Amino acid sequence: MALIVQKYGGTSVGSVERIKNVARRVIKWADAGHQLVVVVSAMSGETNRLIGLAREIQPEPDPRELDVVASTGEQVTIGLLAMALKSLGRDARSYTGFQVGVHTDSAFTKARIESIDQQRIRADLQAGRVVVVAGFQGVDSDGQITTLGRGGSDTSGVALAAALDADECQIYTDVDGVYTTDPRVVPEASKLPSITFEEMLEMASLGSKVLQIRSVEFAGKYRVRLRVLSSLTPWDIPLAEEMRSGTLITFEEDQNMERAVVSGIAFARDEAKITVVGVPDRPGIAYQILSAVGQANIEVDMIVQNQSVDGFTDFSFTVGRNDYARTLGILKSQVQAHIGARDVLGDPKSCKVSIVGVGMRSHAGVASTMFRTLSEEGINIQMISTSEIKVSVLIDEKYLELAVRALHRAFDLDAPAAASA
Amino acid sequence: MALIVQKYGGTSVGSVERIKNVARRVIKWADAGHQLVVVVSAMSGETNRLIGLAREIQPEPDPRELDVVASTGEQVTIGLLAMALKSLGRDARSYTGFQVGVHTDSAFTKARIESIDQQRIRADLQAGRVVVVAGFQGVDSDGQITTLGRGGSDTSGVALAAALDADECQIYTDVDGVYTTDPRVVPEASKLPSITFEEMLEMASLGSKVLQIRSVEFAGKYRVRLRVLSSLTPWDIPLAEEMRSGTLITFEEDQNMERAVVSGIAFARDEAKITVVGVPDRPGIAYQILSAVGQANIEVDMIVQNQSVDGFTDFSFTVGRNDYARTLGILKSQVQAHIGARDVLGDPKSCKVSIVGVGMRSHAGVASTMFRTLSEEGINIQMISTSEIKVSVLIDEKYLELAVRALHRAFDLDAPAAASA
Repeated sequence: MALIVQKYGGTSVGSVERIKNVARRVIKWADAGHQLVVVVSAMSGETNRLIGLAREIQPEPDPRELDVVASTGEQVTIGLLAMALKSLGRDARSYTGFQVGVHTDSAFTKARIESIDQQRIRADLQAGRVVVVAGFQGVDSDGQITTLGRGGSDTSGVALAAALDADECQIYTDVDGVYTTDPRVVPEASKLPSITFEEMLEMASLGSKVLQIRSVEFAGKYRVRLRVLSSLTPWDIPLAEEMRSGTLITFEEDQNMERAVVSGIAFARDEAKITVVGVPDRPGIAYQILSAVGQANIEVDMIVQNQSVDGFTDFSFTVGRNDYARTLGILKSQVQAHIGARDVLGDPKSCKVSIVGVGMRSHAGVASTMFRTLSEEGINIQMISTSEIKVSVLIDEKYLELAVRALHRAFDLDAPAAASA
Repeated sequence: MALIVQKYGGTSVGSVERIKNVARRVIKWADAGHQLVVVVSAMSGETNRLIGLAREIQPEPDPRELDVVASTGEQVTIGLLAMALKSLGRDARSYTGFQVGVHTDSAFTKARIESIDQQRIRADLQAGRVVVVAGFQGVDSDGQITTLGRGGSDTSGVALAAALDADECQIYTDVDGVYTTDPRVVPEASKLPSITFEEMLEMASLGSKVLQIRSVEFAGKYRVRLRVLSSLTPWDIPLAEEMRSGTLITFEEDQNMERAVVSGIAFARDEAKITVVGVPDRPGIAYQILSAVGQANIEVDMIVQNQSVDGFTDFSFTVGRNDYARTLGILKSQVQAHIGARDVLGDPKSCKVSIVGVGMRSHAGVASTMFRTLSEEGINIQMISTSEIKVSVLIDEKYLELAVRALHRAFDLDAPAAASA
């Protein structure tokens, strides 16, 4: 008997009929002898409706009160799911974040979970009940309602699994797992039966939409075994088949020698490149450039500084395309003259493509294969940035699909799922 | 400076624009130097929408979970109203029943308030904030969310006023006070500037729709000064004019000698009369008849038993018209033969008309004026029942309007409001 935390997103509980199907799926797991804690989001569209109401009252809604309003979406779902479970003969109880004791800081609309009480949930599980918990929400030390921000229900699920030391946290979404890359770009993309936590973190932060990055970080910190599953499969498929249908995020590197060196290709569209040209190479220059950008609340992604020649260097970085014009303006007006740079140039039409895989730690030549492949396709590399388990390049956005397809093929990902399960 | 609890119903907060107007009205009171605690209902239609969702999941929704779902309606309103107050420059904080500590028993969907914590509200009032509290809801001793049942927001308002020892509890509704009778039946009906608690209780229970009977009982028990006000007046009328526009429910009988003997005429349509004929007059007969009806969850209103003649008597009572056929069936099949009654007769087309007034305690002849008036209109009285401050008669429903109008005139209520303020 395992203790399993399942999380269902807004689409999975988007109608009365879908809530009933979630109940049937939960009961299938419970009938197999497992203890179930189910975390749910608001019915799809509901959070937007509530925020819309708030904005009609106050264009910039008061954060404390916005959380009071927005948290009702999940509260409706937990009650409805508990009813659905009971109507199918399985005892259940719903709890808000307040009731369980999901303790957070007081950063309304983007609170962070600090601890979760176990007592009430344990008692219900012991009594044979399914426990249904509202995702996305908590309570601060002053008894005020908080929400965790968009995607917070994933985090709620993982945090509950950590607090309860659950055997597994299953995130049901409307995609059926983690793919070698986006199947819309590469139809030959295949689902990964498993992926390491580190790879998942790189994939998530590089633009895969499967899991919220915060929930993956949380899973890493508390070593929660995560499984991404599809809520689109029929609820009554056998358990073993359902387990196989998703992707397991593990902490153990696969011992299988056949494991692919590269697990997946991630990408991010809508990047923009900025280069400060002819910067005097002295301490503090990078700080002066980036602090001006940071003070304007602009997020910087890749950062590259070349070796200086004759005491001057070029300093490049990327920002989201929406921030491109503003960034350029700030640098030209506030920074260029001040630091004595020759010019500020930019290109708003870039994209980032990354290869990710724990295998590359022990395999030389992965980066060079990537560069050769892009070169053979005539794709110029604008910037390069690397970590232990990934290599990212910035390229002209018009080559995005071509680059992803070529790399997917070059690293043997086109074949049926790399043998790693 | 007074501490005032105001309660606004679903129609008063039925749209974003109306919520803003409630905020403006609240600020008007606060600007006059008063401390304000505001209790609100769900936006009109919202509770029905939520219950509808629940019924789609489970035709007889689990009461515990129904309360989890239904209580979200008020939670949305408190957040929106607090935002509206803040956007108009008045500091405010919203609280759910759970957060305030509105402690109830565990009778889900119809819980009773046991106590209310003051601490949090007092601290906010001291800090100059308007406190906005969700009506209709509370929390049981096990931390479970409860609701008070339909109309429960009135009760929340009165209970909060009692707990805080407020100077006044103001119930804003879409009628503008308590009238001598229903103006739809008697266009000459006039608003009562004040009414005693006992009269209000009789008026409420006899069919006036202004206040929930439970909230009036609560106000009586804890001696809360209640005022019914109209939320339909412009929010910016002067305070003094606003006070005059409603009806005050007092505990002090008016010392003004000019006070009308009868304060109002109440009525209830859709009554049905049942008579058990030729009942042997022995102890336990009334019990045997009424317990059979009570076991079927049928509510009995008026009960009359005549003096027996030759050891036999007739036993009459009224039920709601919807229960008429079922009541007749139960009595004929289970009771008539068993107690040796001669027959069971009935009339499903009755109505009840009552005159109410504390003045009748000290005035003889009030009942006889009523009976004479009805007789002059050719209206036959089927049953009579009296209390210290009311006389009720059951009559054929086709005479309802005629009777109410005639009595309204006979007791001098047609004139501009009886001088009692």
